[in-house]
Amino acid sequence: MKAEKIQYTLAELVAGLDATIKGDPNYIISGVCTIQQAKPECITFLMNPTYKKYLEGTLAGAVILTESDAADCSVNAVISRDPYYTYAKIAAYFEQKPKQAAGIHPSVVIGENCQIDPTASIGPHCTIGDNVKLGAHTVIGPSCAIASGVEIGAETQLDARVTLYYNVKIGKKVIIASGAVLGSDGFGLAKHKGVWQKIPQLGRVIIEDDVEIGANCTVDRGAIDDTIIKKGAKLDNLVQIGHNVHIGEYTAIAGCVGIAGSAVIGKNCLIGGQAGVAGHISIADDVMITGASAITKSIRAPGIYSSGVGGVVTNQEWRKNSARLHRLEKMAQQIKALEATLEELTERK
Amino acid sequence: MKAEKIQYTLAELVAGLDATIKGDPNYIISGVCTIQQAKPECITFLMNPTYKKYLEGTLAGAVILTESDAADCSVNAVISRDPYYTYAKIAAYFEQKPKQAAGIHPSVVIGENCQIDPTASIGPHCTIGDNVKLGAHTVIGPSCAIASGVEIGAETQLDARVTLYYNVKIGKKVIIASGAVLGSDGFGLAKHKGVWQKIPQLGRVIIEDDVEIGANCTVDRGAIDDTIIKKGAKLDNLVQIGHNVHIGEYTAIAGCVGIAGSAVIGKNCLIGGQAGVAGHISIADDVMITGASAITKSIRAPGIYSSGVGGVVTNQEWRKNSARLHRLEKMAQQIKALEATLEELTERK
Amino acid sequence: MKAEKIQYTLAELVAGLDATIKGDPNYIISGVCTIQQAKPECITFLMNPTYKKYLEGTLAGAVILTESDAADCSVNAVISRDPYYTYAKIAAYFEQKPKQAAGIHPSVVIGENCQIDPTASIGPHCTIGDNVKLGAHTVIGPSCAIASGVEIGAETQLDARVTLYYNVKIGKKVIIASGAVLGSDGFGLAKHKGVWQKIPQLGRVIIEDDVEIGANCTVDRGAIDDTIIKKGAKLDNLVQIGHNVHIGEYTAIAGCVGIAGSAVIGKNCLIGGQAGVAGHISIADDVMITGASAITKSIRAPGIYSSGVGGVVTNQEWRKNSARLHRLEKMAQQIKALEATLEELTERK
Repeated sequence: MKAEKIQYTLAELVAGLDATIKGDPNYIISGVCTIQQAKPECITFLMNPTYKKYLEGTLAGAVILTESDAADCSVNAVISRDPYYTYAKIAAYFEQKPKQAAGIHPSVVIGENCQIDPTASIGPHCTIGDNVKLGAHTVIGPSCAIASGVEIGAETQLDARVTLYYNVKIGKKVIIASGAVLGSDGFGLAKHKGVWQKIPQLGRVIIEDDVEIGANCTVDRGAIDDTIIKKGAKLDNLVQIGHNVHIGEYTAIAGCVGIAGSAVIGKNCLIGGQAGVAGHISIADDVMITGASAITKSIRAPGIYSSGVGGVVTNQEWRKNSARLHRLEKMAQQIKALEATLEELTERK
Repeated sequence: MKAEKIQYTLAELVAGLDATIKGDPNYIISGVCTIQQAKPECITFLMNPTYKKYLEGTLAGAVILTESDAADCSVNAVISRDPYYTYAKIAAYFEQKPKQAAGIHPSVVIGENCQIDPTASIGPHCTIGDNVKLGAHTVIGPSCAIASGVEIGAETQLDARVTLYYNVKIGKKVIIASGAVLGSDGFGLAKHKGVWQKIPQLGRVIIEDDVEIGANCTVDRGAIDDTIIKKGAKLDNLVQIGHNVHIGEYTAIAGCVGIAGSAVIGKNCLIGGQAGVAGHISIADDVMITGASAITKSIRAPGIYSSGVGGVVTNQEWRKNSARLHRLEKMAQQIKALEATLEELTERK
Repeated sequence: MKAEKIQYTLAELVAGLDATIKGDPNYIISGVCTIQQAKPECITFLMNPTYKKYLEGTLAGAVILTESDAADCSVNAVISRDPYYTYAKIAAYFEQKPKQAAGIHPSVVIGENCQIDPTASIGPHCTIGDNVKLGAHTVIGPSCAIASGVEIGAETQLDARVTLYYNVKIGKKVIIASGAVLGSDGFGLAKHKGVWQKIPQLGRVIIEDDVEIGANCTVDRGAIDDTIIKKGAKLDNLVQIGHNVHIGEYTAIAGCVGIAGSAVIGKNCLIGGQAGVAGHISIADDVMITGASAITKSIRAPGIYSSGVGGVVTNQEWRKNSARLHRLEKMAQQIKALEATLEELTERK
């Protein structure tokens, strides 16, 4: 792992990217670092203006930055219109993620009528049901449980210990982190004579291409129709997606968010950590929801939305604020009384 | 999986149910659908009045509905006093959940002195400790870890990758979704000389009959006494149940809820998604808690409860609201001053 | 499991502890119990004054309590300056946690160049990558997935179904509960031409000695530098730790908390259940954050902090409160108008 030293010239790193080198293209880079804690063998980037102060004294071997920032750069510069994107491309050279051996590990238990591409890799202790299809270069980490009828597109990667329930359909180039569970029954219940009756959950989960799903996320199968996460959407860890939810293309959802059943989230939305979206509502495209907001009604127009009351205060102040809120009715009555008295007074004159 | 076509006559579907057919009892149904996107081979249901508008033009082969709605139904009708319940019963015919083969998969590692009913099914890669008891027709999905002393009642189903710690006791007809962890240590700590000392967690987890536990839920074992989830209670995904919590019969808890240690939740409660209940408090029977509420004191009477401030606004408006809340004290003082001036003015006359 | 009866004399239980027996040192104790539901064969403790009322009539065989409470104790007393700590030490004698057999289970799949201490125990169905180091007396539960380059210190215990991604480094005497995932990719994304570009996550996760991590927690690997959880910190279940977060020594984090990327939490903090901490902010040492708070700005001084508005009310009252908050601007204007009228009135005289 850490044994192997990786080295590239700046020219090698920048090859094929929409970026130019100002400095020595043969300079050797062997890793990435932050601009404030940089070493000469590293490349870093500058995007956030807050960090510009670190540019002057940086010890980095090279800095990826915009044309306008390059003027203040005394080391090698990689000039890009989108330094963070260029950084992403270059950083990929230094990723040392271990590669799982191709083929099906002998400990894997596999059902009937499966179509496993010969280039697929299935790690130890996996259980694969019947009629499962795995595309080219799919990688299934150890101890995954993939039930019957699942289809997984090419170049998709499941990390260790992922569960896919029956008939779940995963597109191409999807990444699913460890512990995620897709296709478990939705929370469908009917109370009958005081007892909950389970509503059969007959839909599927459809994950389109380029989706990423974080560790220990849960995505329920649809009740009748399917639960759908569209192309390029990204889910952080511990996100809960209820049955029949639709997540739009390129929407990003931060950690610990819960989306209740049948909610429809638009394209290009950003949902902050620990936010919640109620069931059966719609969120328009290009909506940003700030962290910890509880969205209880549909949002029809793009924009930034929040709920509740913000601001962190001492617990003592918080207790006062909370009490004041509950005294608002009294305040409203006091104002009304004042207005009445004043009116009377003015008229009397 | 999807290969096999399932077909039933309306009469077959309704047999044994408290419902009557108005139309052709020999009509062939091969699936379920929603009322707005129905096809002639499907059965659907009407319960929510919002959807009544779709009844007239529905293409469904049959609709499950009440006597009063049946008048407006131009296709086959299944008349029921509780259409959603009747739908649940009928939809079960169309569930294509794969059935795990009976018996113990050869890859299973199993301890000593276990009592495994011969009708039980244990999937691949499970680990079963010593002295484990599995009742008739229990189904243990792949890669489950069941520690020593666990007892599981008849017809209970564990999906893939469930962990039961030692001595956890599960009743009959329980369903536990993938990734759930029952019986991990509660969060018991004593700070001693600046260092956390772990409090041994000696209680068990007791899950009574007909309980359902969602994907990636966590239920801690008791510290001294047991953590108990009573008969027929239902937990959605990613719910956290602290040590020594009691959940009452037929209480339903939506996704991402956290119940802190030693809280006692009554019977027939409904707890909305992302709500939290503080430790050592009690919630009465028949309480509904709306989503995202933080319940910090006991609730003694049935009813619907909430916390915080509701309403979704633009982030700009939210910032103003938040600032206003913190200026409430100033407003209260202004009102007081106005009252004083006015009183003085009135008296002076 | 439950078969074996455990019995100790009071003297044996107290040996080596900073506590003294008042009563019969040869009294036989075979378990622990709560003070209100005690039996003669049990030992219990009194710490919370609320429970003092149960002391007089307790049926316990012995009670651990302070010198001052001992006067009111009619049964055997174990006198301690820190009864809860003394209880923790004594309760450990009664823990019946099953011990996993030493050695590597034959079903384990193990990579190359690993250094597994001969006293280590690896349970069934684990997958161990290359270059993994396991210290003395480490215990790895069943179905764990430990990727290449992971190092685990002596006496650390992983329960069933834990995932450690590559290069994660775990200290000594760490406890990781079932379902936890450490080292998955952080949520690093750059939007480029409308499409999310994944930022490679090149840092590690470092868990220092004596840390405890609850069930189904997720801890992301760093983007460039490492994510670090320092010595003696404790995490309850379902906690999400973003990339590059630092958690200080002896900080305790309750269930369902989310800490967003690059947040830095100080030493000896207490973070209540379901609280959230925004990314890139700092929390000072000795800060307590109450449950469900959303911390959106840095906290620079010790103290207790909260956010939002507290208090649980009926849903009807909550709707009114919420509406009032949104009418605050109008109230402020009314007050202003009153002040103006009054001033005019006063001047006119």
